[in-house]
Amino acid sequence: MSVYLFAKELIRDSGAFIRGRMEESFQVERKSNPNDLVTTVDLENEQYIRTKIKEAYPNHNIIGEEYEADMEDSKVGYLWVIDPIDGTLNFVHQRENFAISIGIYKDGEPYAGLILDVMKDKLIHAEAGNGAFVNDEKLSKVKTSHLSNSIVGISHKWLVREDIKGPLIEIVKKCRSPRSLGSAALEYVQLIEGRIEASMFFRLSPWDFSAGKIIGKEVGIITTDFLGRENEWLERTSVLATNSVLQKELLEIMKNDEGFILAHDKFHNIHSSDH
Amino acid sequence: MSVYLFAKELIRDSGAFIRGRMEESFQVERKSNPNDLVTTVDLENEQYIRTKIKEAYPNHNIIGEEYEADMEDSKVGYLWVIDPIDGTLNFVHQRENFAISIGIYKDGEPYAGLILDVMKDKLIHAEAGNGAFVNDEKLSKVKTSHLSNSIVGISHKWLVREDIKGPLIEIVKKCRSPRSLGSAALEYVQLIEGRIEASMFFRLSPWDFSAGKIIGKEVGIITTDFLGRENEWLERTSVLATNSVLQKELLEIMKNDEGFILAHDKFHNIHSSDH
Repeated sequence: MSVYLFAKELIRDSGAFIRGRMEESFQVERKSNPNDLVTTVDLENEQYIRTKIKEAYPNHNIIGEEYEADMEDSKVGYLWVIDPIDGTLNFVHQRENFAISIGIYKDGEPYAGLILDVMKDKLIHAEAGNGAFVNDEKLSKVKTSHLSNSIVGISHKWLVREDIKGPLIEIVKKCRSPRSLGSAALEYVQLIEGRIEASMFFRLSPWDFSAGKIIGKEVGIITTDFLGRENEWLERTSVLATNSVLQKELLEIMKNDEGFILAHDKFHNIHSSDH
Repeated sequence: MSVYLFAKELIRDSGAFIRGRMEESFQVERKSNPNDLVTTVDLENEQYIRTKIKEAYPNHNIIGEEYEADMEDSKVGYLWVIDPIDGTLNFVHQRENFAISIGIYKDGEPYAGLILDVMKDKLIHAEAGNGAFVNDEKLSKVKTSHLSNSIVGISHKWLVREDIKGPLIEIVKKCRSPRSLGSAALEYVQLIEGRIEASMFFRLSPWDFSAGKIIGKEVGIITTDFLGRENEWLERTSVLATNSVLQKELLEIMKNDEGFILAHDKFHNIHSSDH
């Protein structure tokens, strides 16, 4: 069995594990800030996935949201980048609209991506270079779009931050309609299926978007940071995911605002001389 | 058969009509502003519903989004308030996340409400005074909540309007997490099922929220305008729908901002002497 096929079975099993676990009670705790929740199910599910990978592939490296990263030699061999529950707040409040996200790299290059909408048991997946699928159905390339005709996923919380809101407000005003779903992985699913046209996150961790970036590339979704740069390898970064035409329009708006660029790079600890 | 049972069958049939119609091509047109779309399916589905009602109940009155209202004698006998597709932009872009919404009044009093999530074929419904149901399952009363622990549905577009943004920004900053789904009726469904805690719309038409308001009342969701007043009968109005505790917190924020109150009432053509 290929690592890709193994991963498809694993993520389906992991979804069944969560759905079963939801029948019982579980604890909810807060992490660093009150909106960043973690539940015992997040922790258990990451352990579940890690154990299965280590049983099958003892030499593979794994980094995940809930446990200490093992970053050694991460560009040699297989590296799994795991979010056991993406959209934990939705998991707790809504009991739907959350996902498992798994990105896999081989020798530092994208190998495969998988996102499972847990309650719909809907799997979006791709082996790099071989197209993207929803369950067993191959997905078409996305259409290009202009901002005035596009639905844009963006969090309200960034719109109300003084230092960065300028270009984001312009984007909200000019787009056809903004949305906010509360799960980066499921916004990628909407992008990949052509249900929204862009998705913007001022800060994501690698497990939040690795799978989406790998799958999205197969259908013409380009992922960069907010200034059009390749996202730093395994770092927290801003994430702009969209089609090629809309990407140019959105980058134009953000790159024309010097205050925004400074605030963005300060937030992400990027020296301005990097530009 | 009661009018309520008839309405349940009708909305299911209407959902099947839309799903069937989506297999074929349909036209999309813009109404008054570029983001307000109407499709031939909206028009056909309203005709479908109107015809069925008129066949069964020739004396019932009907107002709907797509055709001229017949407001004569609307507080005598049955009045159906219909949105044949709530969330038309989602219908066009996403082919999911849209609803049919039907509110029914009898002699000017709430009689029944029905919202069908068309692609999930999930029906939320209530006969006034007899509790709310999702399909055949009775729903519990919603829990009360505080803003810091609440998910709030609100459109980004109102957050970027100079004249009204003040208290809305405060709400976004203080809430646990904001969301925007693009369908008022489906936000009501999330409220009624306890998946979000408040939903705020600066302007809705009666067909957008009549059903939600009637169903919501059965589980403890209170609907008023943004200043805590009963929504005007069959008028466009702002809509705040939430539990009793959170309502007080949200009203407090909005009622403490005189500029907001003036802008709100000017927008809705309400004379300030009404306060």
